[in-house]
Amino acid sequence: MTPVVVRSIRRAEPAALASLERLGVATVHEAQRRTGLMQPYLRPVWRGARVAGSAVTALCHPGDNWMIHVAVEVIQPGDVLVVACSSESSDGAIGELLATSLKARGARGVVIDMGCRDASEITEMAFPVWSRAISAKGTVKESLGSVNVPVVCAGVHVMPGDAVVADDDGVVIVPRADAARVAEAGEKREEREAATRARLAKGELGLDIYDMRRALVEKGLRYVDGPVD
Amino acid sequence: MTPVVVRSIRRAEPAALASLERLGVATVHEAQRRTGLMQPYLRPVWRGARVAGSAVTALCHPGDNWMIHVAVEVIQPGDVLVVACSSESSDGAIGELLATSLKARGARGVVIDMGCRDASEITEMAFPVWSRAISAKGTVKESLGSVNVPVVCAGVHVMPGDAVVADDDGVVIVPRADAARVAEAGEKREEREAATRARLAKGELGLDIYDMRRALVEKGLRYVDGPVD
Amino acid sequence: MTPVVVRSIRRAEPAALASLERLGVATVHEAQRRTGLMQPYLRPVWRGARVAGSAVTALCHPGDNWMIHVAVEVIQPGDVLVVACSSESSDGAIGELLATSLKARGARGVVIDMGCRDASEITEMAFPVWSRAISAKGTVKESLGSVNVPVVCAGVHVMPGDAVVADDDGVVIVPRADAARVAEAGEKREEREAATRARLAKGELGLDIYDMRRALVEKGLRYVDGPVD
Amino acid sequence: MTPVVVRSIRRAEPAALASLERLGVATVHEAQRRTGLMQPYLRPVWRGARVAGSAVTALCHPGDNWMIHVAVEVIQPGDVLVVACSSESSDGAIGELLATSLKARGARGVVIDMGCRDASEITEMAFPVWSRAISAKGTVKESLGSVNVPVVCAGVHVMPGDAVVADDDGVVIVPRADAARVAEAGEKREEREAATRARLAKGELGLDIYDMRRALVEKGLRYVDGPVD
Amino acid sequence: MTPVVVRSIRRAEPAALASLERLGVATVHEAQRRTGLMQPYLRPVWRGARVAGSAVTALCHPGDNWMIHVAVEVIQPGDVLVVACSSESSDGAIGELLATSLKARGARGVVIDMGCRDASEITEMAFPVWSRAISAKGTVKESLGSVNVPVVCAGVHVMPGDAVVADDDGVVIVPRADAARVAEAGEKREEREAATRARLAKGELGLDIYDMRRALVEKGLRYVDGPVD
Amino acid sequence: MTPVVVRSIRRAEPAALASLERLGVATVHEAQRRTGLMQPYLRPVWRGARVAGSAVTALCHPGDNWMIHVAVEVIQPGDVLVVACSSESSDGAIGELLATSLKARGARGVVIDMGCRDASEITEMAFPVWSRAISAKGTVKESLGSVNVPVVCAGVHVMPGDAVVADDDGVVIVPRADAARVAEAGEKREEREAATRARLAKGELGLDIYDMRRALVEKGLRYVDGPVD
Repeated sequence: MTPVVVRSIRRAEPAALASLERLGVATVHEAQRRTGLMQPYLRPVWRGARVAGSAVTALCHPGDNWMIHVAVEVIQPGDVLVVACSSESSDGAIGELLATSLKARGARGVVIDMGCRDASEITEMAFPVWSRAISAKGTVKESLGSVNVPVVCAGVHVMPGDAVVADDDGVVIVPRADAARVAEAGEKREEREAATRARLAKGELGLDIYDMRRALVEKGLRYVDGPVD
Repeated sequence: MTPVVVRSIRRAEPAALASLERLGVATVHEAQRRTGLMQPYLRPVWRGARVAGSAVTALCHPGDNWMIHVAVEVIQPGDVLVVACSSESSDGAIGELLATSLKARGARGVVIDMGCRDASEITEMAFPVWSRAISAKGTVKESLGSVNVPVVCAGVHVMPGDAVVADDDGVVIVPRADAARVAEAGEKREEREAATRARLAKGELGLDIYDMRRALVEKGLRYVDGPVD
Repeated sequence: MTPVVVRSIRRAEPAALASLERLGVATVHEAQRRTGLMQPYLRPVWRGARVAGSAVTALCHPGDNWMIHVAVEVIQPGDVLVVACSSESSDGAIGELLATSLKARGARGVVIDMGCRDASEITEMAFPVWSRAISAKGTVKESLGSVNVPVVCAGVHVMPGDAVVADDDGVVIVPRADAARVAEAGEKREEREAATRARLAKGELGLDIYDMRRALVEKGLRYVDGPVD
Repeated sequence: MTPVVVRSIRRAEPAALASLERLGVATVHEAQRRTGLMQPYLRPVWRGARVAGSAVTALCHPGDNWMIHVAVEVIQPGDVLVVACSSESSDGAIGELLATSLKARGARGVVIDMGCRDASEITEMAFPVWSRAISAKGTVKESLGSVNVPVVCAGVHVMPGDAVVADDDGVVIVPRADAARVAEAGEKREEREAATRARLAKGELGLDIYDMRRALVEKGLRYVDGPVD
Repeated sequence: MTPVVVRSIRRAEPAALASLERLGVATVHEAQRRTGLMQPYLRPVWRGARVAGSAVTALCHPGDNWMIHVAVEVIQPGDVLVVACSSESSDGAIGELLATSLKARGARGVVIDMGCRDASEITEMAFPVWSRAISAKGTVKESLGSVNVPVVCAGVHVMPGDAVVADDDGVVIVPRADAARVAEAGEKREEREAATRARLAKGELGLDIYDMRRALVEKGLRYVDGPVD
Repeated sequence: MTPVVVRSIRRAEPAALASLERLGVATVHEAQRRTGLMQPYLRPVWRGARVAGSAVTALCHPGDNWMIHVAVEVIQPGDVLVVACSSESSDGAIGELLATSLKARGARGVVIDMGCRDASEITEMAFPVWSRAISAKGTVKESLGSVNVPVVCAGVHVMPGDAVVADDDGVVIVPRADAARVAEAGEKREEREAATRARLAKGELGLDIYDMRRALVEKGLRYVDGPVD
């Protein structure tokens, strides 16, 4: 791929993003038929953040974070920067200075399939970062990559402008065109779950609420009173 | 193994469990001659919990949490649910709804050789969960497993009714029949350690307290004043 | 290597150590031309500590922590104990008792390429430990190793008396003879970064501050307005 | 557990073992309802061996192979030595000398949840070994473990005398009492598979042979002619 | 994503595929500007195969290989089956029977981000398979996935009909539309390499052939005669 | 560290190297008191090679193999190139062309803590390579490192001119000054082992040959005839 920076992209709708952020990763992932979830090795640098935004993507090379500097310029307020790497690398490609810059430009957070450094400072700034490692290993600015091209990040294909949702459970990607529909499905799911939660909290059984008993018997589950040989 | 649910099991004695819980994992593991410790990849979803209870076991299949729903029904107040999986899986087999249900039924916590989701909510609920991963990946309810059969969880053989002790250091299993004896040994060990701790805190050396100097010399340890070639 | 304990070593200068501690791992690692950083699997047992001190080294064997007991005797106030292991082991070779002893002798902290146990107690004591795992697995005292010999710990060669700097970002080693020079370079780097941080926080771009635009063009980076095929 | 050597154990029936060996791991694992398979990180040191035998078990400690020497004495011709370790270790606990000794005593092979060394020599001897690593790392003879006690090896609970089946696909354990029944089920399964194989080799589809089409439609699978949005 | 099977796809041109197969993975990956390479944990079940073909894709769920059976029907002679999984799984989703069926239908090979079983039989059949593990663990046929939809396999986005090239070095994907162009670039690259190889084999230095000396000096490389401090 | 190439180094004695090569890794590692062994993730690209030579070292950066090209010039016949990397990288930093060049210059082999590509060609050439991965991922030539400086490779500190011994069991480093002494110790060890091997092959027990019975009893090992509780 020729190194390229795409300046303008189409973004997800603010209303859908607001809903997705409120719903959180687990609900959005279910509402989207269990697709789009990044691999669980991506972890938040600090616990407690929840964000949704449109993806600005950057493709870097191992040990090199040059394209993050390039990507900052095309970030718009509300965006989430998604950084992929052309091969496995846990070097600290994002740190306090880049976080300061991204925050100043309005970025909601960073999802990076490389490492993060300055973990204390970034925690203090309350700037949300999901990364594959915490590592002080510095990076160079030698190799061109691209900005706002399709990438694969932590096992998921991300198009620029896709909705990124991230919280303590991880990161899920919703294709831009599906954002509104998935948000709606998520809201409905949440209502159902609220009702279920209330019943479970009173001690009712999922077996009854979800009507699972017949299916279990049909599949052959046997109940016995004591240990079997 | 034919899928089966064993309804009633013998449980560890409450007095022994209370002692084991107070002692914590490291002491119990030592008091049991360094056996029964689950592999250290099992980590608490939040730091600070310490529980002991009788094991209710569930055997699930990868990507499937059906048997957890089945297990909830046979949980009694004070039990700890131990979930094994027939092959490696980090999918989020337990989340807020199941945690709500388990808490309502009196479960003390969950030890699961799969993933956990809704990490923020579970932390807020202060419901103790030890898992191999945090992952929002949803699971299906398609394949039968068993409840209250012997399982291997994170490298340890667990029989239903065994004592489960879990804290920030991990998870240790004490066979039901040994619980009282191990608790007693742990209490004695703790007394000895309290005395040792006081001496160490004053600056005395373990070399002297444990009388190690002679053994070191006999094995051939040499002391020199400066660097050697 | 014949098992040996070297009683007296030369230590890094206090002034340099004070500066290195204030600067922290990421800055020191950069100031040292990106060398000396331990692998990122070494993590703090609790977040928030930052220490620097002279290395007292111990070489242990898997499942055995005898040499840590031996090392305590040669620790001087301000030292950091660096524990290497002759093969991969995550067993809990350091716990509350050893931490109590080390603290009483004035150690600033421990960097250990094995496991740590009593994580809650060590967190409560606020004694800084960086380890490859948290594990309650107990260890024996059977095999001799050495104290204050050169070791490789988490991928880095450490000489007794080298400066050890550790914080939430990991652990970096500065050769004793370089400590003052690296500290000075770090202080200068920090000044430059403070100026840069202020400009970035106002929304200026790194592309401009670091004058990267020409180099990007020369290497062939192309800017386009919308998606490309 | 007090260190103990159990001299005499009950072994699986030779006829059942012969059948299990011929069937191989994948078929036996299926015939046993997909249980008993060790984790796939256990790999053969050389490709092409297939063995079945009664398990003689040994429990070692990390970096220590003393109990293997002890176990050799209780090996009988046709047995397979199964070595577990009390915590993760890839040190080379078995090498050419032990392999020579085991072969001389009639052992069929070794399954070891530690490392193997002298890989070339063991390959040349054609002595079958399944291990978690190839590593020249030597071990000590310091810590007692046990022989012929129940162990967990690579995620599976093994009782002395259980049938061990191992080939290029890995290792499966069949409880001693089930060996004949599982062998019989495996033989039947193999007959059915032979018939199926012949049909598949002619180009018939599994969809038809296994009659899957209706179930696929009922679950909601949709066929389309070209790409969909 | 609604479960769907796309029956007909556009395939890469036979001439381009023939060239890509001859060139092999390393050359194709370079000719494509170092993109499209799957992660190196995908390994051949046996060494020595080299194939190229159009991708027929299948998306499975962990522990479930139903969609592979469905995919067989839409395979055409010369295709390579590419199997992705919705979360990490090393279960043996492909074995001798499926390999027999795929071979009978003309498939060139299988690239699967899950496990492979019957490793001996598949080696004997000389049917090429690249997988993340060898594991006898059987799978169920319970959950619908899709066939011939875009997937992410071992870190690479694959569209049905893309060119798949696989050999001992791994697996690389070439977008269908680029296949001819990349093949051409690869052929040229190979010619250049042949010339270079001949010069290197005579002892000429890469430093001279690639004219690197000036760049090294400009970047600051210093040559000294003996060890430096 | 300032990038530097050290042209001339002192090498290990040919006679010692010849002996070390004949003895192989496991024996040399034991003869050296179990030190110097690289981590077992370093594996030979093909099985069956055994080499010893003086180390020429190169320090590369992730995704960059420039310094290997530089190192070729200072290689002398009989040397083994040892490549370290400043952070974890499995990219294919060595391939057929570099192997051709190294072979032409007389190198005995390569030990590289990065990846290797062109695995088939390198196997066919019978050029010995030990690497952490096989990966076609290409590398750039952008960042300076050093040649013939001390490095840490796969967990071992290597000085230029140290003896490198490598075979199917892995890689061990012997400090240059110790090479003759270690070789001599290895030869003696081998003689002893030959005698032991002959006795073991006849069925004598290690328990008797090594006179272990008394120590086992003294430590508390208990023999029983049948299963215990």
